Amino acid sequence: MSEHNNRLSALRATLAAQGLDGFFIPRGDEHLGEYVPESAARLAYVTGFTGSAGLAIVLASRAAVWSDGRYVLQLAQQTDASLWERLHVTETKPELWLKQHAAGLRIGYDPWLIGAEALAKFDCVEMVPVAANPVDAIWVDRPAPPMAPAVAYDEALAGETSAAKRARIAATLREAGQQAAILTDPASIAWLFNMRGSDLEFCPVALGFALIEDSGRAVLFMEDEKVDAGLRAHLGAEVEVAGRGALAAAMAAQAGRSVRYDPATQPVWFKMRLLEAGATVAEAPDPCLLPKAIKNAAEQAGSRAAHLRDGLAVTRFLYWLHTAAPAGGQSELSAGARLLAERRAANHFRGESFPAISGAGPNGAIIHYHPTPESDRPIGRNEVYLIDSGGQYDDATTDITRTVWTGPDAPPDEVRARYTAVLAGHIELARLKFPEGVAGAHIDAFARAALWQAGLDYDHGTGHGVGAYLSVHEGPASISRAARPVPLAAGMILSNEPGYYEPGAYGMRLENLVLVQPAETGSPRKFLRFETLTLAPFDRRLIEPADLSPAALAWLNDYHARVLAELGPHLPDEARAWLAGETAPIGAIN
Amino acid sequence: MSEHNNRLSALRATLAAQGLDGFFIPRGDEHLGEYVPESAARLAYVTGFTGSAGLAIVLASRAAVWSDGRYVLQLAQQTDASLWERLHVTETKPELWLKQHAAGLRIGYDPWLIGAEALAKFDCVEMVPVAANPVDAIWVDRPAPPMAPAVAYDEALAGETSAAKRARIAATLREAGQQAAILTDPASIAWLFNMRGSDLEFCPVALGFALIEDSGRAVLFMEDEKVDAGLRAHLGAEVEVAGRGALAAAMAAQAGRSVRYDPATQPVWFKMRLLEAGATVAEAPDPCLLPKAIKNAAEQAGSRAAHLRDGLAVTRFLYWLHTAAPAGGQSELSAGARLLAERRAANHFRGESFPAISGAGPNGAIIHYHPTPESDRPIGRNEVYLIDSGGQYDDATTDITRTVWTGPDAPPDEVRARYTAVLAGHIELARLKFPEGVAGAHIDAFARAALWQAGLDYDHGTGHGVGAYLSVHEGPASISRAARPVPLAAGMILSNEPGYYEPGAYGMRLENLVLVQPAETGSPRKFLRFETLTLAPFDRRLIEPADLSPAALAWLNDYHARVLAELGPHLPDEARAWLAGETAPIGAIN
Repeated sequence: MSEHNNRLSALRATLAAQGLDGFFIPRGDEHLGEYVPESAARLAYVTGFTGSAGLAIVLASRAAVWSDGRYVLQLAQQTDASLWERLHVTETKPELWLKQHAAGLRIGYDPWLIGAEALAKFDCVEMVPVAANPVDAIWVDRPAPPMAPAVAYDEALAGETSAAKRARIAATLREAGQQAAILTDPASIAWLFNMRGSDLEFCPVALGFALIEDSGRAVLFMEDEKVDAGLRAHLGAEVEVAGRGALAAAMAAQAGRSVRYDPATQPVWFKMRLLEAGATVAEAPDPCLLPKAIKNAAEQAGSRAAHLRDGLAVTRFLYWLHTAAPAGGQSELSAGARLLAERRAANHFRGESFPAISGAGPNGAIIHYHPTPESDRPIGRNEVYLIDSGGQYDDATTDITRTVWTGPDAPPDEVRARYTAVLAGHIELARLKFPEGVAGAHIDAFARAALWQAGLDYDHGTGHGVGAYLSVHEGPASISRAARPVPLAAGMILSNEPGYYEPGAYGMRLENLVLVQPAETGSPRKFLRFETLTLAPFDRRLIEPADLSPAALAWLNDYHARVLAELGPHLPDEARAWLAGETAPIGAIN
Repeated sequence: MSEHNNRLSALRATLAAQGLDGFFIPRGDEHLGEYVPESAARLAYVTGFTGSAGLAIVLASRAAVWSDGRYVLQLAQQTDASLWERLHVTETKPELWLKQHAAGLRIGYDPWLIGAEALAKFDCVEMVPVAANPVDAIWVDRPAPPMAPAVAYDEALAGETSAAKRARIAATLREAGQQAAILTDPASIAWLFNMRGSDLEFCPVALGFALIEDSGRAVLFMEDEKVDAGLRAHLGAEVEVAGRGALAAAMAAQAGRSVRYDPATQPVWFKMRLLEAGATVAEAPDPCLLPKAIKNAAEQAGSRAAHLRDGLAVTRFLYWLHTAAPAGGQSELSAGARLLAERRAANHFRGESFPAISGAGPNGAIIHYHPTPESDRPIGRNEVYLIDSGGQYDDATTDITRTVWTGPDAPPDEVRARYTAVLAGHIELARLKFPEGVAGAHIDAFARAALWQAGLDYDHGTGHGVGAYLSVHEGPASISRAARPVPLAAGMILSNEPGYYEPGAYGMRLENLVLVQPAETGSPRKFLRFETLTLAPFDRRLIEPADLSPAALAWLNDYHARVLAELGPHLPDEARAWLAGETAPIGAIN
């Protein structure tokens, strides 16, 4: 780890030369999102830590790196304790650490890498924006930023022209008295302009920025290399394309206008430039966030079509697993590879939507586990195996988790009881009707009540939004107590994924994607319900029918009948016969 | 209404003389609470509107008065449309109305009558604090402020000495680096000093203010007339008593200290004086709010004892009603009077905890209905009757709602179905186990799911906190989606009161108070459950057993058995026999 020692020393020398007492290194890039290209992995370069959430602060004589509960072990393994204090972000808040150790000091930060809301938490110390990131100055052999071409997205799949989307956003801006809005989230930009890209591994976007005017005209800030003539023609005359270098001048030109800026998701660099220019900064959420989350009829149809293909791939995989697992010789990695191969055989498959979590036995209890050659565990007989995976298809993004008992013997009663409690929660949520106005935070507990009754719970949210051939984790809605409550609305696609984790023994999670639909109730109030999109059987060996209510059993049998009816005709005889057995009605008496 | 015309004209003249373009008239007094003495009912004096929520803004040539959905009709009846725009507070936000009609104008406000948080909403216009309220200047025959003596509260009932409470609060302040805290909520002051009063009709407090230091010493700002020698002795040497006139000097003396101030519940006057004095204003919730909500063993025992007496009064009333209602001749007011008489016969009864809601037939559908001689409706045969009432007892505050079918015929199936759905929700919540950290907002939906399944809902929260011989509506916790989520904690007392309202036909609400208790689950996680405190039967004629789950039926039968076991021995033979019939086990098959 002496290379990280050298990097830290070089960084400190650079800071000293710039008159800074410290520097703030977040994990994110200029888009402040979940996915960070290698060229922007500054936290990993300086500290060695590669987890998906974290930050570091370097002072002259001390330095600390933070992550959360998922990464305690990884943080300890990847970073050098002689260089870094390794801290838990909720136990030792960075802002308090900084207040304690950096009172009166000048702490540098890169205004491209932090939002205004996050920056405000550090107002007890003197935070100094830098014009050039000192990490970049010391970064030897830094990878080039991704420069994959962006491509037009089929309007038949998008369901709405970019012009119509821009007109909708423009109307929103006019209503709010805003003349323009900044866009920095590549998924918002992909949605707005009906285009996709391949700058990132799991999310089909092209990195860039945009400014949309209240007229519907827009500027897309994206390097020329990414925008070929075909895409240029697709974008049309209302969309100007300029390089990222044109951003500063574009912000300066906003003088006297009210410009929408999202302090939660957009770099503070934009706010600073707008204020400098004499623009009014109208703080409000990214205007594409909510419209993008509400899928139109074409996107909904695309998702159903993709879920048929994805369900077939998963079901073929489960059929293979039911003989491969008891036979032995398989591992987390080989099973993951098999599932990926099944998906690759599907039409319109573009890649995984995230790195698959394939966890056998105790590894299943590690909620964000990803098998590596070092950690790879054989899938044993008579154990619980969990696989959480998803695909990017031209017409949708999928995300599914199934948990199976490998057999050949029957599972212990306790394992069946736990699985059934998780399934009961999944079903309670799946069959819920709820009025408009209700947010995921208000119904998350339905997926937990059966576990709660037994004194059990799971330490993650119940569901996240899912994009339409975009990010598998999409805002603004979720089914989680932790998130800001955003009312669920017809057209949103979310995951329904309760779980249970017995550390050192096994993990279980049962995940389907659901589409929010209007519910017919015969009442004048507007109600919503979930349409389950995902199609794959639940492992009946793990179900204790006596622990399910009659209504839950009826839901399960209906769902299984639908899985068979939709997938069966597309399966070979043997697999179809197996699926028929797996989805046969389960009676109330075991 | 010409008197209100005269008052409005007089007010406008006063404003003009003071160089103000308008004035802001909230409903609250200097304690910003629910209960306002006659002497502070400025909104009612100026506008005529007497509802429990509202505000008015007077400009030179226009004036508006706001309230919410509960008071649309009352606002229209009580105020003069030629003088006032009558507005709905969420449809036309006062701050937007002001922005539209008062841009560039100077709008006066009384800094004693608004909190810093509420004031901040009006920062688009120039809000000018006044030294003396111009409404008071024009108020002819203004009632004197209440000046009832405060009295010591029995330490055996309080369960903790004031000195111990003050030491706890002082420790909280020291931990937060605060040297003192302002207290303006009379309930916080009553709790902290173990005293009660009778300045208000339904809440046993004495109006006053306090300042508590990080040493545990405190100053109680209360007029001499209210503090006799006995109370003085009770307060002890660590508590100084000063008149309200001493407040300004006390704030001026905070120079250089960090003083806790609650922007949500305390008048901005305090913040202004502290800033003027050169104190640091530490914005944080009233430090008594959470400790007061968590009832100690003595308060819990007091509540159980009071609920036995209150349950007997309510049950004797229900027994009377079951023959009086079909016999005819009773009305909402006579029934309310009968229940009050039953309570008055109980030991330690001090008065009602709020004006009873006694609603027959369609009046029951008006959620905040209070019968008056004009509105009083006979309690007819074969109708739904709702009564929501509560008592203040030396040892607790109670709040209970029961809904009954007056008979003599059986109720229609639809009415039974609705009642049973409300009861199912009540029971789902009552029997829930949930982990620590969960707030009421996250479990409110359990009380609604049975109604939601039928496309129905109710437009109020499911539960509110309840004080210990204090306010029947107490923060910070609630069971409501609308409120800021505060984790439920063992010792809190809340109401569980789902309902259903069929406008023009009937209203139903089923309310028990519940005490949050640790739950035994055998798991290492900490779980909580509700102990139901309220004791009175539910009307079995309105219950459809087939609509209740086996677990819900079991809860109901257990509860009814407990009601009989606890109340029965204290009832006369005839009433006991009736209660035995009312609480007999209900089978799963009707």
